[in-house]
Amino acid sequence: MTQARPGLGVGMVGHAFMGAAHSQAWRTAGRFFDLPLTPDMAVLCGRNADTARAAADRLGWRDVETDWKELLTRDDVQLVDVCTPGDTHAAIAIAALDAGKHVLCEKPLANTVDEARAMVAAAQRAQASGVRSMVGFNYRRVPAVSLARRLVEQGRIGEVRHVRASYLQDWIVDPEAPLVWRLQAERAGSGALGDIGAHVVDLAQFVTGDRLSGVSGLTETFVRERPLPSGEGRGPVTVDDAALFVGRFAGGALASFEATRFATGRKNQIRLEVNGSAGSLAFDFEQMNELQFFDGTEDPDVAGFRRILVTEPGHPYAGAWWPPGHGLGYEHTFTHEVVDLVRDVAAGSDPVPSFADGLQVQLVLDAVVRSAAAGSGWQAVEES
Amino acid sequence: MTQARPGLGVGMVGHAFMGAAHSQAWRTAGRFFDLPLTPDMAVLCGRNADTARAAADRLGWRDVETDWKELLTRDDVQLVDVCTPGDTHAAIAIAALDAGKHVLCEKPLANTVDEARAMVAAAQRAQASGVRSMVGFNYRRVPAVSLARRLVEQGRIGEVRHVRASYLQDWIVDPEAPLVWRLQAERAGSGALGDIGAHVVDLAQFVTGDRLSGVSGLTETFVRERPLPSGEGRGPVTVDDAALFVGRFAGGALASFEATRFATGRKNQIRLEVNGSAGSLAFDFEQMNELQFFDGTEDPDVAGFRRILVTEPGHPYAGAWWPPGHGLGYEHTFTHEVVDLVRDVAAGSDPVPSFADGLQVQLVLDAVVRSAAAGSGWQAVEES
Amino acid sequence: MTQARPGLGVGMVGHAFMGAAHSQAWRTAGRFFDLPLTPDMAVLCGRNADTARAAADRLGWRDVETDWKELLTRDDVQLVDVCTPGDTHAAIAIAALDAGKHVLCEKPLANTVDEARAMVAAAQRAQASGVRSMVGFNYRRVPAVSLARRLVEQGRIGEVRHVRASYLQDWIVDPEAPLVWRLQAERAGSGALGDIGAHVVDLAQFVTGDRLSGVSGLTETFVRERPLPSGEGRGPVTVDDAALFVGRFAGGALASFEATRFATGRKNQIRLEVNGSAGSLAFDFEQMNELQFFDGTEDPDVAGFRRILVTEPGHPYAGAWWPPGHGLGYEHTFTHEVVDLVRDVAAGSDPVPSFADGLQVQLVLDAVVRSAAAGSGWQAVEES
Amino acid sequence: MTQARPGLGVGMVGHAFMGAAHSQAWRTAGRFFDLPLTPDMAVLCGRNADTARAAADRLGWRDVETDWKELLTRDDVQLVDVCTPGDTHAAIAIAALDAGKHVLCEKPLANTVDEARAMVAAAQRAQASGVRSMVGFNYRRVPAVSLARRLVEQGRIGEVRHVRASYLQDWIVDPEAPLVWRLQAERAGSGALGDIGAHVVDLAQFVTGDRLSGVSGLTETFVRERPLPSGEGRGPVTVDDAALFVGRFAGGALASFEATRFATGRKNQIRLEVNGSAGSLAFDFEQMNELQFFDGTEDPDVAGFRRILVTEPGHPYAGAWWPPGHGLGYEHTFTHEVVDLVRDVAAGSDPVPSFADGLQVQLVLDAVVRSAAAGSGWQAVEES
Repeated sequence: MTQARPGLGVGMVGHAFMGAAHSQAWRTAGRFFDLPLTPDMAVLCGRNADTARAAADRLGWRDVETDWKELLTRDDVQLVDVCTPGDTHAAIAIAALDAGKHVLCEKPLANTVDEARAMVAAAQRAQASGVRSMVGFNYRRVPAVSLARRLVEQGRIGEVRHVRASYLQDWIVDPEAPLVWRLQAERAGSGALGDIGAHVVDLAQFVTGDRLSGVSGLTETFVRERPLPSGEGRGPVTVDDAALFVGRFAGGALASFEATRFATGRKNQIRLEVNGSAGSLAFDFEQMNELQFFDGTEDPDVAGFRRILVTEPGHPYAGAWWPPGHGLGYEHTFTHEVVDLVRDVAAGSDPVPSFADGLQVQLVLDAVVRSAAAGSGWQAVEES
Repeated sequence: MTQARPGLGVGMVGHAFMGAAHSQAWRTAGRFFDLPLTPDMAVLCGRNADTARAAADRLGWRDVETDWKELLTRDDVQLVDVCTPGDTHAAIAIAALDAGKHVLCEKPLANTVDEARAMVAAAQRAQASGVRSMVGFNYRRVPAVSLARRLVEQGRIGEVRHVRASYLQDWIVDPEAPLVWRLQAERAGSGALGDIGAHVVDLAQFVTGDRLSGVSGLTETFVRERPLPSGEGRGPVTVDDAALFVGRFAGGALASFEATRFATGRKNQIRLEVNGSAGSLAFDFEQMNELQFFDGTEDPDVAGFRRILVTEPGHPYAGAWWPPGHGLGYEHTFTHEVVDLVRDVAAGSDPVPSFADGLQVQLVLDAVVRSAAAGSGWQAVEES
Repeated sequence: MTQARPGLGVGMVGHAFMGAAHSQAWRTAGRFFDLPLTPDMAVLCGRNADTARAAADRLGWRDVETDWKELLTRDDVQLVDVCTPGDTHAAIAIAALDAGKHVLCEKPLANTVDEARAMVAAAQRAQASGVRSMVGFNYRRVPAVSLARRLVEQGRIGEVRHVRASYLQDWIVDPEAPLVWRLQAERAGSGALGDIGAHVVDLAQFVTGDRLSGVSGLTETFVRERPLPSGEGRGPVTVDDAALFVGRFAGGALASFEATRFATGRKNQIRLEVNGSAGSLAFDFEQMNELQFFDGTEDPDVAGFRRILVTEPGHPYAGAWWPPGHGLGYEHTFTHEVVDLVRDVAAGSDPVPSFADGLQVQLVLDAVVRSAAAGSGWQAVEES
Repeated sequence: MTQARPGLGVGMVGHAFMGAAHSQAWRTAGRFFDLPLTPDMAVLCGRNADTARAAADRLGWRDVETDWKELLTRDDVQLVDVCTPGDTHAAIAIAALDAGKHVLCEKPLANTVDEARAMVAAAQRAQASGVRSMVGFNYRRVPAVSLARRLVEQGRIGEVRHVRASYLQDWIVDPEAPLVWRLQAERAGSGALGDIGAHVVDLAQFVTGDRLSGVSGLTETFVRERPLPSGEGRGPVTVDDAALFVGRFAGGALASFEATRFATGRKNQIRLEVNGSAGSLAFDFEQMNELQFFDGTEDPDVAGFRRILVTEPGHPYAGAWWPPGHGLGYEHTFTHEVVDLVRDVAAGSDPVPSFADGLQVQLVLDAVVRSAAAGSGWQAVEES
């Protein structure tokens, strides 16, 4: 019987955009995937009791806490899901791991490299006693992206020569858009670079199975002052609006990256193209159920980028859902994340992306920041 | 408080493909949309008790029944959701309505026009006592399709001149694919025409706000015998593999329709294009988050089909979900269906598509069958 | 030496749209393709001497005649290229063939089946004495279309099951567009059906290598009266604005066709999709350098419609032009037509499409007209 | 009478790929555009007399010379068209200009900045006596690209914030592809950067109407040794296979550029996207007859990138050719180049792109090379 399976009590911190996405994932994962543990949406934590209670009702959490530290003492919480802004990730995640709770932490792992290193250390300590941790780069788990990784791994595109990745949004093109927390360095750590650039750095490294070794970049803040959210007065924007960089992978591939919130008309466009000696792959999140694949070993008469609808039973994650051709949406990436995490927890295996993977992304972003500050000069990505 | 809202007890009959889709919708609707009634997934009904119990656990239903008639007597069921094959729709839906239960019935409404007429009569009787009914043409509630309807209603494409609609699949191209119930006339009523052609007939009529008045068509069964699902022996395919027809709308537009399960490489491609005197619209379910719109009143120098990402807050349904650019999937069409149905039930308004709308689609399909049987001669669509 | 090659004197009748396209073809063919005969643009024939002379200068013709009969007596004309409206095709082509001149005749072959039959008879008489004839269905010679034909011939898509073809334009959506000759039955013979429908009928038959055996269709004239080109008064539109039909191929495939001048936003969109038991092909003239090919024998994990850029050296015609990825335009279809015709003339082989092919297309259109006149009832395509 | 127009004698140096493209342009320009001077294809110059004669016959040139200096003394040559590899551009162009001949010079203007500066000086000297010069960045004259420029100029996208440009090819992915002159620094000057990167730098500057002020980049040679074309032995590749850089425009926009010959499956893909404060534009040469335009001032409900088919009478160059929807190909960019040049020569106005524009592109490429050599550090683009 399904209900005889052991449960996995979850406590989630934060209930904004990411909180809603994670809730849907926790609620849905076991309905479509055969999970060894049954997620129990035990507690939602938010600073304001009333707001948190309303969110818990709406999102489907049983209890509410207003202090995340309470989660660590509850017996009905075995896993802490961190959905807060980046400035609190380190404190919550480290404490949770040290308290023996598995941790799923939203990206970016932390706002600084030092915090990220401390989190990795905590994850390693915890791992010794069977406690698992994962950082939430959800776009890896778009079926088309997972398929891309699989094809690279199978050697279908040969040796990787080029990577081009961009994450384009336009939500603050209007100079009168307010100065929300994501535009404040002390809360968000970074702007487009850390918020969305982090995603494409992770995607590029995931799909290629390789790591950036050095970068050269620049950043820009186009609108340097914005209305305060309160409606009165204006304040300085202290993060980047856009970041561009070129880089090299350890394996020799060249790469270009771009992250911006000023690409008018591009709402949430994540593009990744990888060219190898034997083939190429291209992905665009605007058509998230498709992967473009060029097989360079084909007869040139019939070679061409093929648009694979990644909805076949044999495709990553797809078989658990609907028949071929019935696509998935944004939210399903989080469901897949939860599925894999729960399976790893049950199996005693280490989830990916690990905190170390998250740190490595931070190190890339850090190198970009250093390069931008130093006249775009080349900066090696530090060893994690 | 959210939980103070009155509940709406649901009993669902059937737990295969459609049952899974509907379950996800019932589970999700209230998490993203502000519903006046809180759906309660009370009972799942399936003929085999063990299978039904397992499905209920997996899909999230509290109780199980093996006879759908039991649903009609339960106080915790106010709405019956019919997800069975078409040959049982009429019996269940009519009994439920007569028992004062609201009904959501999967398409096609029925396997025969007579059954459909009886269902409409039952719906009308029930309506008098405040009982609601809806037929599940879910694709209407793809946000892009709803937006298309809105643009036509606003006059953005002028007078409709052309409609072309197709629903292409390829799941039985292999002549060794087994003779499942969908290929048997006595269970499915019809083949590609009734199963998927029904969807595009409804879409075309919905988007244009008009009705087909006559048709001329043909049908074909390419593979006339298939292996029995048991694995032993072969049996005759008694439904069409493909159907094509041309037609006229009451308002004067010309139309062409195609439904087939033999379009190799087309997994679930629903395409609809509408050309009007002032503009055009085009939709392709393979890119379900997009609507193509040509505004014929634009300066020709900058006129072109625009690819609208239908994920803006102002777009139908989209605002309840994620930020712009974060697309939805197949399953969300069912969630939208449930949201609208629950709101109508609470408001005492009549949901669409109504059973009468479902009957009208049946009448179109019936005219196609008559035309195909009579040398493709023109057949008027009967009045409902 | 190139110049030592024998010449082929050409006389062209008509110098409007088609005349300009053919002139560019005659001028260009030998510059990129190795031709056994060197085309000599000897004479341009137009009814008005001054207009014809100006056209000849602009288009590159040496002499001018005002009566096409003069072409038949000139020793410097071995080939007559007929670019006039359809009502004069039969008279000119038959006289030219009987005078021993090779003939290239624009489509549609004729305005009536009777005329077309007479032209075929003339072509057969002429063939006996080595005189060649070709009808100008230029779209066959888009490299992507020729490649599609080749792939069907090689069995790459298996047995053809479905054909859907449409030719969409919007040039007379405006009800105040004037009553030009193409809208008058006595000059044009037919409207959208004969002008552009003829093209897609030919394309579908060419690519499949099969012939339509029967059809059921309807036609419509949305705007029944238009301003006279003179600017004074209005006159009746005597041809169809749009035509739709379904049909069956001799080999068993189902087909749908549409031709319209009322598809707002579609300027010259020719689409053809062919689904076979082993694969599919799709073409859209708006991306004329591309062919979509789905190979149904591929592993489903990597199967998808591939976008072949038809610019490789091994692709039909492409090798004579530019390096891969440097596309061709509309006009090149005429150049390819001329290249093949000149080679056939030199080799003593029969060009395709032949007049008999042109007649066969007329017979299909004729069956559509008969069906439309008879309540869309099925009409067999007459034997040619 | 057309033939009464004065002629413009042309002498072309070189008859390979570019020679064939230019010949088609000279032959065609006056057939579709109303030119004030009639081009006379007087002399083709090639080092080998027999080869040159054969080329002249094939390409349509009257006379042949084997020494380009002879062109400068011929009275029937008023314009010299330089289609040779880059190492000879400076010598030929400067001598021609000094001899009073107008010059059309293929890109890149020269192999070194010093040569380019000398050419600009010669062009300025010549201009004083009414002698014109133009550098052949043909892609500017794709109608869609010219339309993009027009829309930027009209302020339709507001202030430019982002430019991303790439030119991807794959012709030497195979490590056994031979060491042709384009892979030798002494002939070609540069590799992907100078050959194709130059095009996208020009395009980006042309469309934005702005100039790059600084860059940071890197280059790579993936395959460092290749078979000699003779078939015996191998030699070193002395140019880059790929180049990537980021940069800033004088007006404040950020930019990224990429040029490579190692993008498997990309045959000749030129992409340009420009994001402004009020809209965006995107172009892809694989669909050269289309321009994507996002109008940020639209109601968000109907905003979207619109695919403009750039074939309308009001579009740049398009009106001279075919009706709407009948696209052009690669070669037409050269025809447009010739048309504009001839008109400027006749009008006594200065053609664009000028030699100074060509120099400016060289200065950008030079800054990239310097940056790549200096650890990707920022390099200002020198003033021309």
